[in-house]
Amino acid sequence: MDGLGGLPHPETGKTELETASTPNLDKLAARGICGLTDPVGPGITPGSAPGHLALFGYDPVTFKIGRGVLEAIGVDFDVQPGDIAARGNFCTVDSAGLITDRRAGRISTEKCAELSQLLDGQVIAGVKVFVRPVKEHRFVVVFRGKGLAAEVTDSDPQQVGAAPKPVTALRSESDRTASIANKFVASARAALADHHPANMILLRGFSHRPHLPSMSEVYKLKPAAIASYPMYRGLAKLVGMEVLPTGSTIEDELSTLKQSYANHDFFFVHLKGTDTAGEDGDFARKVRVIEQIDAALPVLTALEPDVIVVTGDHSTPAILKGHSWHPVPILLYSKWCRTDTVTKFSESTCLAGGLGRFPATQVMSLAMANALKLAKFGA
Amino acid sequence: MDGLGGLPHPETGKTELETASTPNLDKLAARGICGLTDPVGPGITPGSAPGHLALFGYDPVTFKIGRGVLEAIGVDFDVQPGDIAARGNFCTVDSAGLITDRRAGRISTEKCAELSQLLDGQVIAGVKVFVRPVKEHRFVVVFRGKGLAAEVTDSDPQQVGAAPKPVTALRSESDRTASIANKFVASARAALADHHPANMILLRGFSHRPHLPSMSEVYKLKPAAIASYPMYRGLAKLVGMEVLPTGSTIEDELSTLKQSYANHDFFFVHLKGTDTAGEDGDFARKVRVIEQIDAALPVLTALEPDVIVVTGDHSTPAILKGHSWHPVPILLYSKWCRTDTVTKFSESTCLAGGLGRFPATQVMSLAMANALKLAKFGA
Repeated sequence: MDGLGGLPHPETGKTELETASTPNLDKLAARGICGLTDPVGPGITPGSAPGHLALFGYDPVTFKIGRGVLEAIGVDFDVQPGDIAARGNFCTVDSAGLITDRRAGRISTEKCAELSQLLDGQVIAGVKVFVRPVKEHRFVVVFRGKGLAAEVTDSDPQQVGAAPKPVTALRSESDRTASIANKFVASARAALADHHPANMILLRGFSHRPHLPSMSEVYKLKPAAIASYPMYRGLAKLVGMEVLPTGSTIEDELSTLKQSYANHDFFFVHLKGTDTAGEDGDFARKVRVIEQIDAALPVLTALEPDVIVVTGDHSTPAILKGHSWHPVPILLYSKWCRTDTVTKFSESTCLAGGLGRFPATQVMSLAMANALKLAKFGA
Repeated sequence: MDGLGGLPHPETGKTELETASTPNLDKLAARGICGLTDPVGPGITPGSAPGHLALFGYDPVTFKIGRGVLEAIGVDFDVQPGDIAARGNFCTVDSAGLITDRRAGRISTEKCAELSQLLDGQVIAGVKVFVRPVKEHRFVVVFRGKGLAAEVTDSDPQQVGAAPKPVTALRSESDRTASIANKFVASARAALADHHPANMILLRGFSHRPHLPSMSEVYKLKPAAIASYPMYRGLAKLVGMEVLPTGSTIEDELSTLKQSYANHDFFFVHLKGTDTAGEDGDFARKVRVIEQIDAALPVLTALEPDVIVVTGDHSTPAILKGHSWHPVPILLYSKWCRTDTVTKFSESTCLAGGLGRFPATQVMSLAMANALKLAKFGA
């Protein structure tokens, strides 16, 4: 459950998870062992990539993934070594060139695809430029050619009323990338002149594809991901999971799990609704999403997995309208988990759980141990 | 208590320690401070050596000890720098050379001694070969000579129905070791031909003696070990403890403690029965052993040590019939321990203990602090 952790509602003193009626999760908590994870570290608010990498057992401080690369992989673009990817927004600028809407009125995904095609396929100073639509105003651009380096600044000033900034090199090896990116922005501006509100672009998160050892190498698993949002599918691919085609509702994803259950020995099931509701500051909706997930849980538990882990990549408290640093509730069930006294799944009850509070990077070794998949260390 | 931690009995929901009646441990818990330790790390199941090294304050990931060296030191064999030690099994092979019993029907320790003597004292290509009996079918072989390196494979395939494997070098420096080990195996096979069921040998865990700073150096202590099993005596020697002669029952070991109490300022008292019962899957026996230890505890507490630590090197839940990754209950008593609310010594109660859950490598610094033996850090 993306962004699972929360904060108390000012009127009730209860978090989203504490407010929700979750009989199935509570039943699982009673049989399992609970605790709280720190995705990156105490006080550190994780982005989506670090939060997930930690859960998969990759230290997010060691393995950094640029936003551009994540977006590119999420739309099935085959990022190659040496490519530079950046996240793009279609935006609106006024006649003075100042940004009036960083998201171009959230144009439709269809419009985004049409405009992306308009910008796709240029060759600038020998560098091929690929442009792919993501969703609404979001696209990804990939620069492919010799001598490119990713250390350049964003063009996105992250505020309205300002002009898009020129892309500048942070070290001399990136001069060529900055120059080509600026030429691309200039050409995009010309091409989009008649496409108000999407009459300009903003770029950020220029990055290379990092090398991560695959989960098959690390854990000898045959892992699969069930996720409907591009970024999480991309992230799953990056750690070597097979990304399964799936519908986007909770029921769709659990149905995909059921259908594919015999083909894999590890499933990452990503449910986005909790985070979206939290980001929107919609406490009641986050509660409802948790209740929907709880209601659908029997589809998963009926498969009788050796190990079930229920947790999130970070907290997204509705009252903060964004990701936060708060530790994330975790519930682990296996026949060998050494259950604790926790009988309700929530932030406050997990505090007394048998797993204690621990780094999220240790979740996979705990899960692997509970699946009896780890050999003894030393004689 | 070796392998102290457990898992709940399916019928009662209580672990071995929770099932046992332990009035003396509970009294000590009420006066002391409790917690849970991770010997190596969450999800990691420790072997005996890493579990004990961690308790003595040596990071078991940094200090690795081969099985062969551990066995050799455990039988009082003086392993010298450059020696290569391997753990041996007498085993049974059929006429086709396939293993039918990896333990040769667990021959008597007397028979093992007789056969070990038969193989002892050869010189192969200038390398002297020492063979010493350990217990039942187990022996240790030490190769002493120039140019030996320990990076070779085991000859033990760890399964019946297979043939013993040739020892092979994992790097070129180990070629000579592999060749000599194979010659030794061949000569053993010839010498044992008429000694069915012990008509062949299996070797594993080829290793050098590692260098560990002694506990006297690290802690300025004069440490002693009271342990009846060879491996734990060997391990204690490796960290510089004086190994005291002792009988093998709980009462014998505590009597040894009492007699030697004035001569040392640190005692490691190793009680093996908890682990053996766990390994045998005998829940009721593990409960009984814990109760026996509890009953004998007043002999120890009557000595009024400044600090008492009661814990295990790892968990050995009877229902898993082996070591496991679960954290281990720990009880620390001293006049300065800042007691908590725990009044019963068990896995579930220790969860709420004042020591929390922490790496076993920190036990010694806690114990030293409680003995008021550590100076202030910094000005």
